[in-house]
Amino acid sequence: MTPLPQKIAVIGAGDIGCGWAALCAAAGWPVTLFDASSRSMERAAIDVPRRARALVALGHATEGMVERGLLELHQGRSLLQTVQGADWVIEAIHEDLGAKQKLFHAIEEVAAPEALVTSSSSGIPPTELFSRCRRQDRCLVAHPLNPPQLIPLVELVPGARTAVASVTRAQEYLRALGRMPIVLKKPVPGYVVGRIAAAVWRECIDLVLTDVIAVDDLDRAVSLGPALGWAAAGPHLTYHLAAGDGGVNAFLQHLLASFEGWWGQLATWQRLEPEQQRALTHEVERAYKGKVEELREARDRRLSAILRALEQTRTT
Amino acid sequence: MTPLPQKIAVIGAGDIGCGWAALCAAAGWPVTLFDASSRSMERAAIDVPRRARALVALGHATEGMVERGLLELHQGRSLLQTVQGADWVIEAIHEDLGAKQKLFHAIEEVAAPEALVTSSSSGIPPTELFSRCRRQDRCLVAHPLNPPQLIPLVELVPGARTAVASVTRAQEYLRALGRMPIVLKKPVPGYVVGRIAAAVWRECIDLVLTDVIAVDDLDRAVSLGPALGWAAAGPHLTYHLAAGDGGVNAFLQHLLASFEGWWGQLATWQRLEPEQQRALTHEVERAYKGKVEELREARDRRLSAILRALEQTRTT
Repeated sequence: MTPLPQKIAVIGAGDIGCGWAALCAAAGWPVTLFDASSRSMERAAIDVPRRARALVALGHATEGMVERGLLELHQGRSLLQTVQGADWVIEAIHEDLGAKQKLFHAIEEVAAPEALVTSSSSGIPPTELFSRCRRQDRCLVAHPLNPPQLIPLVELVPGARTAVASVTRAQEYLRALGRMPIVLKKPVPGYVVGRIAAAVWRECIDLVLTDVIAVDDLDRAVSLGPALGWAAAGPHLTYHLAAGDGGVNAFLQHLLASFEGWWGQLATWQRLEPEQQRALTHEVERAYKGKVEELREARDRRLSAILRALEQTRTT
Repeated sequence: MTPLPQKIAVIGAGDIGCGWAALCAAAGWPVTLFDASSRSMERAAIDVPRRARALVALGHATEGMVERGLLELHQGRSLLQTVQGADWVIEAIHEDLGAKQKLFHAIEEVAAPEALVTSSSSGIPPTELFSRCRRQDRCLVAHPLNPPQLIPLVELVPGARTAVASVTRAQEYLRALGRMPIVLKKPVPGYVVGRIAAAVWRECIDLVLTDVIAVDDLDRAVSLGPALGWAAAGPHLTYHLAAGDGGVNAFLQHLLASFEGWWGQLATWQRLEPEQQRALTHEVERAYKGKVEELREARDRRLSAILRALEQTRTT
């Protein structure tokens, strides 16, 4: 069993970086957070404790720890000072391959020899991300979903040169944080979640732009429909359980013909042209105009309620 | 406001028909259920009360109503006797266009002039389903998800000749049953849910058959990852809320390039060849062998817990 980390370095103080920082600090792990933008750092000083409080409310962190100053959250003064002495360096900057490659190169210069280095990239293969690192054995992707402190899944994507021990260590850290790490057997662009999300989003955009359904009706249809089933079981298991005792084989016999008919009809475009972007933006803004804050709060309440319900289910 | 129906006829006593019957009977509506197979009818006599009890447990039906004999569930002796005098005729037989067309033709012969007629088809356009009916004004698709008594969404798909009043009436019946009816603006094969599910499933099959991820890891990745987000907000709203105050427009600026890269790489095959069907069946059975009953119960517990949590969120 790997000892727990004594210092976490989080580079990038956007939504993903603040989520990682809140998750680790709420677990009592000392976190140093760094962002080249002082505005992002100022925002993070408010945002990370806010996220930590949400974890307390969920019962995932010690009651009152934020108020009693138990959150060990430090503002890094430089990349060097942030990364130095860290057991785990978490990259969480914007999704730009060149910027990430440069950052990993700089991290390597200053990181302790035993540091674990993970990228929060949502889809770039690790071999590209870490191409400028000499020590790729300790590097891998640990892709969280948004918000990272709430959604349990973290995709672990090792590269060809990642050491098995580094994958194991990342799994142990993540499990200690209450996460569910899933290891991909091989890296593909978009990993697993990005590809599935891309398949969903393309069809959802197409259904709106071809005027089959309104934006808010589509969102309701997914969230009160198939998403509930997938949250309860996952797609393969859903179909394995859908045809009685015959399992997925019986399901294929009954419904493959329908699916094959639909597969031939799904959207296949690969670019969203500027006029389509404008049309989509127009439809989404029209559906949700003036209600964004209210919808964000409702989303957060729903997500927290679902997570709490699922945790109670696991323990009963 | 349409008066509530005094008699519901459900034709087909499989999973979907039993779900409809339980939902209506648990609401106190008299239901007559008919299936040409006596074996299905025998199973339904046990299955419908079991589903109704689950609705009682969720607080959706009167405590003890099953035990006190308050479930008005009748076994139809023939199609004629089942449909005669019904305000609402629900077709829920297997997904076979010819069989459904023939059934709707037979229903039309015996249904009361004012009866509403709905099909539970999961993707066939209404114009095809009702092509042999003279009175298409009262016919539309009302597609529930599995299990119909639990998942709130019902897709309403009117055909070109469906009367607006029939759509309104279906919405009123469904809302009275605690359902969330969503009306499509025009019919497409697979409707909305089937197309999105088809996009998801193709990619999920592909990720397993190309050995990127194991079946159970993929299911966990979806259910503990994106499905939670979609259950809380739906795809368009998720992305509208994901990029801070900039909304979907800012999201497109940051992440469209990633999505476009993935769209170009997603699975595009339209048939699942026999050897792929065998490979998929093999992988799914290997992942879940000997655990199906346990997994079904866990799925049902998770789904009930999520639904209860979401209902409490709505009322707070």
